[in-house]
Amino acid sequence: MLDLIRSLAVDNTTKVVLLSLDGLGGLPRPETGRSELETARLPHLSALATDAACGLIRHVAPGITPGSGPGHLGLFGYDPLAFQVGRGVLEALGIEFDLRTGDLAARGNFCTVDAAGLITDRRAGRISTELSVKLVERLKTIRLPGVEVLVEPVKEHRFVLVLRGVGASGRLSETDPQALGKPPLPVRALEPAAARAAELINAFVDEARRCLADAAPANMVLLRGFDQLPELPRFPEVYALRAAAIAAYPMYRGLAKLVGMDVLKTGGTFADELSTLREHWQAYDFFFVHYKDTDKAGEDGDFEAKVQALERFDSFLPTVRDLGPDVLVVTGDHSTPSVLAAHGWQPVPALVWSRYCGADPVSTFTERGCAGGTLGLLPAHHLMPIVMANALRLTKFGA
Amino acid sequence: MLDLIRSLAVDNTTKVVLLSLDGLGGLPRPETGRSELETARLPHLSALATDAACGLIRHVAPGITPGSGPGHLGLFGYDPLAFQVGRGVLEALGIEFDLRTGDLAARGNFCTVDAAGLITDRRAGRISTELSVKLVERLKTIRLPGVEVLVEPVKEHRFVLVLRGVGASGRLSETDPQALGKPPLPVRALEPAAARAAELINAFVDEARRCLADAAPANMVLLRGFDQLPELPRFPEVYALRAAAIAAYPMYRGLAKLVGMDVLKTGGTFADELSTLREHWQAYDFFFVHYKDTDKAGEDGDFEAKVQALERFDSFLPTVRDLGPDVLVVTGDHSTPSVLAAHGWQPVPALVWSRYCGADPVSTFTERGCAGGTLGLLPAHHLMPIVMANALRLTKFGA
Repeated sequence: MLDLIRSLAVDNTTKVVLLSLDGLGGLPRPETGRSELETARLPHLSALATDAACGLIRHVAPGITPGSGPGHLGLFGYDPLAFQVGRGVLEALGIEFDLRTGDLAARGNFCTVDAAGLITDRRAGRISTELSVKLVERLKTIRLPGVEVLVEPVKEHRFVLVLRGVGASGRLSETDPQALGKPPLPVRALEPAAARAAELINAFVDEARRCLADAAPANMVLLRGFDQLPELPRFPEVYALRAAAIAAYPMYRGLAKLVGMDVLKTGGTFADELSTLREHWQAYDFFFVHYKDTDKAGEDGDFEAKVQALERFDSFLPTVRDLGPDVLVVTGDHSTPSVLAAHGWQPVPALVWSRYCGADPVSTFTERGCAGGTLGLLPAHHLMPIVMANALRLTKFGA
Repeated sequence: MLDLIRSLAVDNTTKVVLLSLDGLGGLPRPETGRSELETARLPHLSALATDAACGLIRHVAPGITPGSGPGHLGLFGYDPLAFQVGRGVLEALGIEFDLRTGDLAARGNFCTVDAAGLITDRRAGRISTELSVKLVERLKTIRLPGVEVLVEPVKEHRFVLVLRGVGASGRLSETDPQALGKPPLPVRALEPAAARAAELINAFVDEARRCLADAAPANMVLLRGFDQLPELPRFPEVYALRAAAIAAYPMYRGLAKLVGMDVLKTGGTFADELSTLREHWQAYDFFFVHYKDTDKAGEDGDFEAKVQALERFDSFLPTVRDLGPDVLVVTGDHSTPSVLAAHGWQPVPALVWSRYCGADPVSTFTERGCAGGTLGLLPAHHLMPIVMANALRLTKFGA
């Protein structure tokens, strides 16, 4: 599909804005029978939906709850099942670590082991980020032959480990036995080319044990999700678009960078993001703009807060429309229903507005409303071709 | 999918008519907010839609604008991405050239080169068809060793070149550099088996240069879209149907022939086509009937003319129903919205009527109306299995 798009992409002067509301989709609250989107007052979204083509987006596969990584890769047009990104890499992207080709990344966490070396707490009592930062300083002193050892704190007991210069393969088993009363496992190479990586990681773990010996409860480490930076087709080349990402949170900047978008410097609020959008309006053809508040409220299980986050977003919509994009897309990377207080598998409302989108009967941007739209139930990675078509940036297939 | 259908197809006496309205789908006109289908008075189509299963057809993939070739292959049940037909072959089909297995076809056009051999006009000032016919006579005098050289004029500066007996592969690069100020490129074999074809084509181009030397502005040729006749599963065998095509335009006759339908002789109007349908009613099980006017009006950007073309078609519908087909299908090969004045990527309304189609809530044959139908958003090549089922011509899968 990406090859097909690449072969049909043509230049134009049209501008595209993709607004991604993190965790957009929701579920009815039992008390009212109405979802967050059905409860919120969203006059600008309703008006836009009336003029737009609407539908529901399925990001990975039926019943599958997407993480933010696959969720956004889908929106960018990459089938998340075909382009898998390891958790070590996602963790590194989440702290905006400058991950390079060949780096081997892992999710690390401090844990507690007893005198016999058996695990008694897989998260070291969730030590404070402050303490974690100090212990990471110790890990940074570890030296291994022929590679650079990079360690960065994340939050509480979590950190990222990166070995730079490790070689062609980092396909390794994990050290976390996922159970108490067992020792951390040595890693094993899952293919012959990963043998050196396995040796190095086991050496790192030995050194870590040594230098954390007096640091109980955080006296040992567990390493998971080993992976290297995947080679993804570059978004600006596939679509022949100058593409920019505007996101206050590092994870989403990292995902955009992963596919080759320019990541613009911006402030911490959505208002800041929209200022950044306005400032760079001339310099790019495509803008990915990320709105985080919806997901945060959903993850907290705070129905009212999610309703308010949606209404706040709605109040910003005219600011975007005033810029005069040729194609405006509103959707999300996954649902986060407040009643679940977690990511959900439910398809996510989506709308595509342009002069040529072809209106449909949908006039409310809700889960139920969008189910009757002309976009139908759309795999996420089919969205970008539709966006490209609406931007008149795809030529005809066949004579 | 075709193998599955072939294995399940059974005989019956039922008759199927597939009415393909070229460029059927449209878009709302900004002034009224209504599309061509929503503007036209279509009493017979509305009545049929009320009794039929309706939906929207997507011919190639989301966002992809189909050419007439892929558009019709999809309607015939062939996934257009799996069965790609080169542009040279489509151009040859478009003039009803009797293309045979092993023929190598290319789209040719006359161009202008300066004294240094650099291109100054890629279309030779769009010379008249009359002049083109004369210059093609010169090209017809070219002789090459071991192959037959066939050249036929198309329209204005365009012609078709066919080398007969060229061998197994015609995978060649193009001679058009797609830019002015450059010389035409020699063709290169894209696989070893195409080496002889490359040599022959380059020899043809040298000869063409020589015999057009005094014919400025049409003093050189460009060749593109090299391809050989693809081997497609034969429609009458896959579906176990005696199948006939009725089309006034050569391109659609060519496409029908490509899949092995009998192409019936007919006149230049839709009324002629329907007379042909009536005459051959007993002799066939399946009729593909093509209606061109909708596309022509859409390509001209003439909204009113497209509305009228739709109304004219509607007035003919009773003539078809009077024949008593068991399954009647109305759809198109792609959309041609008047506001685009070109083929569009928008899904195309479709209806399938039979005693067993299962009516749905749709009572208007429009883009918006069909969005709510039970056929859903259907890949074009899934239509024929549904048609076959409605004709009671498919047996059960599994016991």
